[in-house]
Amino acid sequence: LAGSIQKYVSVKDEDHFYHQGAVELLIFNFLLILTILTIWLFKNHRFRFLHETGGAMLYGLVMGLIIRYVTKSPDVESGTVYECEKLKSGPSTLLINITNQVYEYQYKREISHHNVNGHQGNAMLQKMTFDPSIFFNILLPPIIFHAGYSLKKRHFFRNLGSILTYAFLGTAISCIVIGLIMYGFVKAMVHIGQLKQWEFHFTDCLFFGSLMSATDPVTVLAIFHELNVDTDLYTLLFGESVLNDAVAIVLTHSISIYSPKENPNAFDAAAFFQSVGNFLGIFAGSFAMGSSYAVVTHLTKFTKLCEFPMLETGLFFLLSWSAFLSAEAAGLTGIVAVLFCGVTQAHYTYNNLSPDSKMRTKQLFEFMNFLAENVIFCYMGLALFTFQNHIFNPLFIFGALVAVFVARAANIYPLSFLLNLGRKQKIPGNFQHMMMFSGLRGAIAFALAIRDTNSQPQQMMFSTALLMVFFTVWVFGGGTTPMLTWLQIRVGVDPDEDLKAKAASQSASDLDKNTTKAESAWLFRIWYGFDHKYLKPLLTHTGPPLTSTLPEWCNPIARLLTSPTAYGDQLKDGDTVYIINNDELTENYDSSAHIPVPAQDSTGSIQATGKEDIQEGDLGLGGYKLQLQHTADQPQKNSLA
Amino acid sequence: LAGSIQKYVSVKDEDHFYHQGAVELLIFNFLLILTILTIWLFKNHRFRFLHETGGAMLYGLVMGLIIRYVTKSPDVESGTVYECEKLKSGPSTLLINITNQVYEYQYKREISHHNVNGHQGNAMLQKMTFDPSIFFNILLPPIIFHAGYSLKKRHFFRNLGSILTYAFLGTAISCIVIGLIMYGFVKAMVHIGQLKQWEFHFTDCLFFGSLMSATDPVTVLAIFHELNVDTDLYTLLFGESVLNDAVAIVLTHSISIYSPKENPNAFDAAAFFQSVGNFLGIFAGSFAMGSSYAVVTHLTKFTKLCEFPMLETGLFFLLSWSAFLSAEAAGLTGIVAVLFCGVTQAHYTYNNLSPDSKMRTKQLFEFMNFLAENVIFCYMGLALFTFQNHIFNPLFIFGALVAVFVARAANIYPLSFLLNLGRKQKIPGNFQHMMMFSGLRGAIAFALAIRDTNSQPQQMMFSTALLMVFFTVWVFGGGTTPMLTWLQIRVGVDPDEDLKAKAASQSASDLDKNTTKAESAWLFRIWYGFDHKYLKPLLTHTGPPLTSTLPEWCNPIARLLTSPTAYGDQLKDGDTVYIINNDELTENYDSSAHIPVPAQDSTGSIQATGKEDIQEGDLGLGGYKLQLQHTADQPQKNSLA
Repeated sequence: LAGSIQKYVSVKDEDHFYHQGAVELLIFNFLLILTILTIWLFKNHRFRFLHETGGAMLYGLVMGLIIRYVTKSPDVESGTVYECEKLKSGPSTLLINITNQVYEYQYKREISHHNVNGHQGNAMLQKMTFDPSIFFNILLPPIIFHAGYSLKKRHFFRNLGSILTYAFLGTAISCIVIGLIMYGFVKAMVHIGQLKQWEFHFTDCLFFGSLMSATDPVTVLAIFHELNVDTDLYTLLFGESVLNDAVAIVLTHSISIYSPKENPNAFDAAAFFQSVGNFLGIFAGSFAMGSSYAVVTHLTKFTKLCEFPMLETGLFFLLSWSAFLSAEAAGLTGIVAVLFCGVTQAHYTYNNLSPDSKMRTKQLFEFMNFLAENVIFCYMGLALFTFQNHIFNPLFIFGALVAVFVARAANIYPLSFLLNLGRKQKIPGNFQHMMMFSGLRGAIAFALAIRDTNSQPQQMMFSTALLMVFFTVWVFGGGTTPMLTWLQIRVGVDPDEDLKAKAASQSASDLDKNTTKAESAWLFRIWYGFDHKYLKPLLTHTGPPLTSTLPEWCNPIARLLTSPTAYGDQLKDGDTVYIINNDELTENYDSSAHIPVPAQDSTGSIQATGKEDIQEGDLGLGGYKLQLQHTADQPQKNSLA
Repeated sequence: LAGSIQKYVSVKDEDHFYHQGAVELLIFNFLLILTILTIWLFKNHRFRFLHETGGAMLYGLVMGLIIRYVTKSPDVESGTVYECEKLKSGPSTLLINITNQVYEYQYKREISHHNVNGHQGNAMLQKMTFDPSIFFNILLPPIIFHAGYSLKKRHFFRNLGSILTYAFLGTAISCIVIGLIMYGFVKAMVHIGQLKQWEFHFTDCLFFGSLMSATDPVTVLAIFHELNVDTDLYTLLFGESVLNDAVAIVLTHSISIYSPKENPNAFDAAAFFQSVGNFLGIFAGSFAMGSSYAVVTHLTKFTKLCEFPMLETGLFFLLSWSAFLSAEAAGLTGIVAVLFCGVTQAHYTYNNLSPDSKMRTKQLFEFMNFLAENVIFCYMGLALFTFQNHIFNPLFIFGALVAVFVARAANIYPLSFLLNLGRKQKIPGNFQHMMMFSGLRGAIAFALAIRDTNSQPQQMMFSTALLMVFFTVWVFGGGTTPMLTWLQIRVGVDPDEDLKAKAASQSASDLDKNTTKAESAWLFRIWYGFDHKYLKPLLTHTGPPLTSTLPEWCNPIARLLTSPTAYGDQLKDGDTVYIINNDELTENYDSSAHIPVPAQDSTGSIQATGKEDIQEGDLGLGGYKLQLQHTADQPQKNSLA
């Protein structure tokens, strides 16, 4: 009898637990609904000073405040540490007999001794704190995949050299600069007695540098997109931020596993090179993992799966997520894998999908990206009050603020100068200033910082990173539109028109055998030739049939691997060089070429065609001005044509 | 120094934990990918003997077998119970000092003493075991919402009386019959010494009865849908299964909180009536909660949110999920709330959505339903080997098998007989046999059984429920197509044509003042009048303007609340009775009525128009035969017209 009553009580208890879970999810739903309504209000009133992400953070902040100070008083039991002499290490599951009833406890984390007293928050605060693995396994993949999937390839590849420079070299510079400056501040803090010497090593500073180097200009890019800002600037910034996340994550990973044998402050060459090796190995491995999953998806070319758009969408979704999970399971970086999986899927698989699936996948990933992004920003707002081990050190925060700016400047300006030496289309000064200004920190920096918040330095870094996110998103995010006006960057550009115009000017000079071409183009020309001749026909329904590109003895295999539809649109071989230069544009341009298009264009940037080396520098400015006086300009252009 | 090395080690440890999470998710992804490929293969070969859900279970089963017998040996630490005298009750978080390092442990569950020894599985098995709350908060809502959202209203409301009878009365009958039979078997088991008297009460039997009463003919319905089986049969079965889930869940909830004061075996009238009160209260409360959330969503009518389909979709999704979570948080049943939220959304909100959002929401919910369903079925397969406290008792299992069949028969046949007394369109015998045959058990029964598996009776019930799911899904799911042929149920019916034909025959008799009408129609006629006159104009852009339906003194408010587009399509008042009978069909029928449509139709069921009371009984049979000789039939019909 007693057992039976006991059982019913326990059922009720568990019910109580379920309801708790519902309450937490409900709070997030409520925040997201508020955010959506705010976005709608802002969009309706064309109000651009607070982006949706900023709004989400604000609501999260208010909710965190309410949860912290309104919910019930601390649980008496927490904060007490129990001794257990029998155990040697912490098992993953612990069975404990309490007043003749066995309870199962699940391992959660290690706690430093100094946190034990601070660990007294109420149950609600604890429940509102996600397991950091949820960020990495659930929330980040759709965001990163969407970034890769929606990459505008043709613009991206035009600027690939610059993007890679900013992303790899720039992030490394940023990491080292932040690390050095923070090390200076840490020394100062030790000097005035705010910190003990042994608590904060140079590797910790570098760790902070690497996580703070992940920029997230989602706010800026959203405004750029809305205003149709110059496509080259958009692409540079978007490409940089996408790849930079990957680099920063792998960098953080490499630094966290850098373990010098002896003195952690001294430079250990062996350990350093091992870290560099780790970085390269992890990056290459993740890249390979992501691409190979995308290749697996390409095999849908041979199935008739496109008759069932839902199955196709499901397979696409699951394989992309699997790319992430496999990389994580293999000890690589899932984010990098899912990014390149997205890029490759967009490049090859997308062409194999049925029209219905194309739209479905796009909308699905867009929706998941939207939700995940806003959940993370809401959570960041919440974390300011619900996270229970914040350490706000004014000197450290000030140091971080300085370091982040100096590092961004040390990344953008010197690299732009170097790139401009090689680029035909220079990166103008106002673009550089805008890129400098767009160095916002966001979801990735936060996710990397929250991954481990056990020691005091880690907590200090987490609190500081959180504040940096707030500051940059609200101040820089809000200041984007005024900054664009102030820097006179042209807006209202049609990306297709713009590219066509630029390509036209470029191919015109190609025809003149002008071989002082765009940056490191030979590498990409080889890649593009290979891609167009072999990979595209192999993996998609487009491109020339393999039978025409492969040597003759490969014919049997080639025939097997080529899609029957590929024979339909055979391309003339003479076009290949052309394709190499302009990729996808080919078709657009080809068709428009039949009607003689004058080199002039409504954007006005074309007037520079002949003398681009001189005038490209103020192209943005000129474009912007012209755009403003568009109607007045019309007759003048007609007379030119 | 030691601390620093310690820290790096801990970082690595946590990394290990992340990777674990990735592996588990990866296993599910892999299973789902396999399932999708199988579905594709089956669809391509029109192979209907194993449905996707059956396939998912099969793959789960194989994977569970592999995980169980291939992964590493048991963790030494588990299975040992530690004493803790200082604690009075189990706190939600436990801090334990093990060899001078504090670990945080999270409360997971209570364990019965007899399970402690069985609790020795390896970590992998434990990790593959979901928290049951994931089923309730994450996986079930999309499935149930989709069911409500995709309900074919017009067919549903035509058969509402029968559906409600089967769902409410039928489920109650089923619950009691299973409970009684199981109580007999339990008594027998006690008699032969397999069970101790005090372990299994009559309330436990009723609990088992209620959870086993949740039918899930997803397999059958999928095949019905594919073959276009008779719409009335489809609707009866679909409607019954949707509402029956809700009833079974609330019933289970009510029984689990039924706590008689004294002897749990004796009948306690007060507690019984309290349970009945609970049932009604929870059901009504959940219904109100779901509908009110849907009403909130309707307010989108007044916003211009439809300009931003993504925001609209997001809001729609979040509000629907919030309906579920709010009900759970309030101690009601979220599943019931989300079901009626879905029905109401489909009825009102769907009309307010932009065309883009209509498609987006449909595809999104379809996709989520698809994923969630397959995850649950995979998990059921896995659970057979990964769940560590199975108790398979042959007598109990045999009892359950008998009980489930008898209960299904006691539900369908007597109720069909009673319904046929009142129905104008009788439910023919072969429909009854098919409904009897379609009593599959699935996700809901499983989710209810896994919710609490702490005591021995609960474990026995869980293991038995799992086996029942396997048996019914494989045997009955696979046997659907042969059964349809054997019962000569007509297939290949166009639902719109079918309804139009039936409505035509019915309204024709209405005009003859034939008042021996369909079942309890007066109630729905009142509801429909109210809905059409007031609710539809208030909540959507359709229907007559409120200014014409409300009394004159309400005009100012009415004008405010009516959508400007509503004035456009004013309906003649004389049509109202008409609308009441045929709901949405009105427009279809109205337009077709201008061209004199003969009562005959290609389905052939119309020949019964004048003498329906006699011939309706073999309508399905006749239809089926006619369908087979469709071409031969054509000239004959023409001669009739």
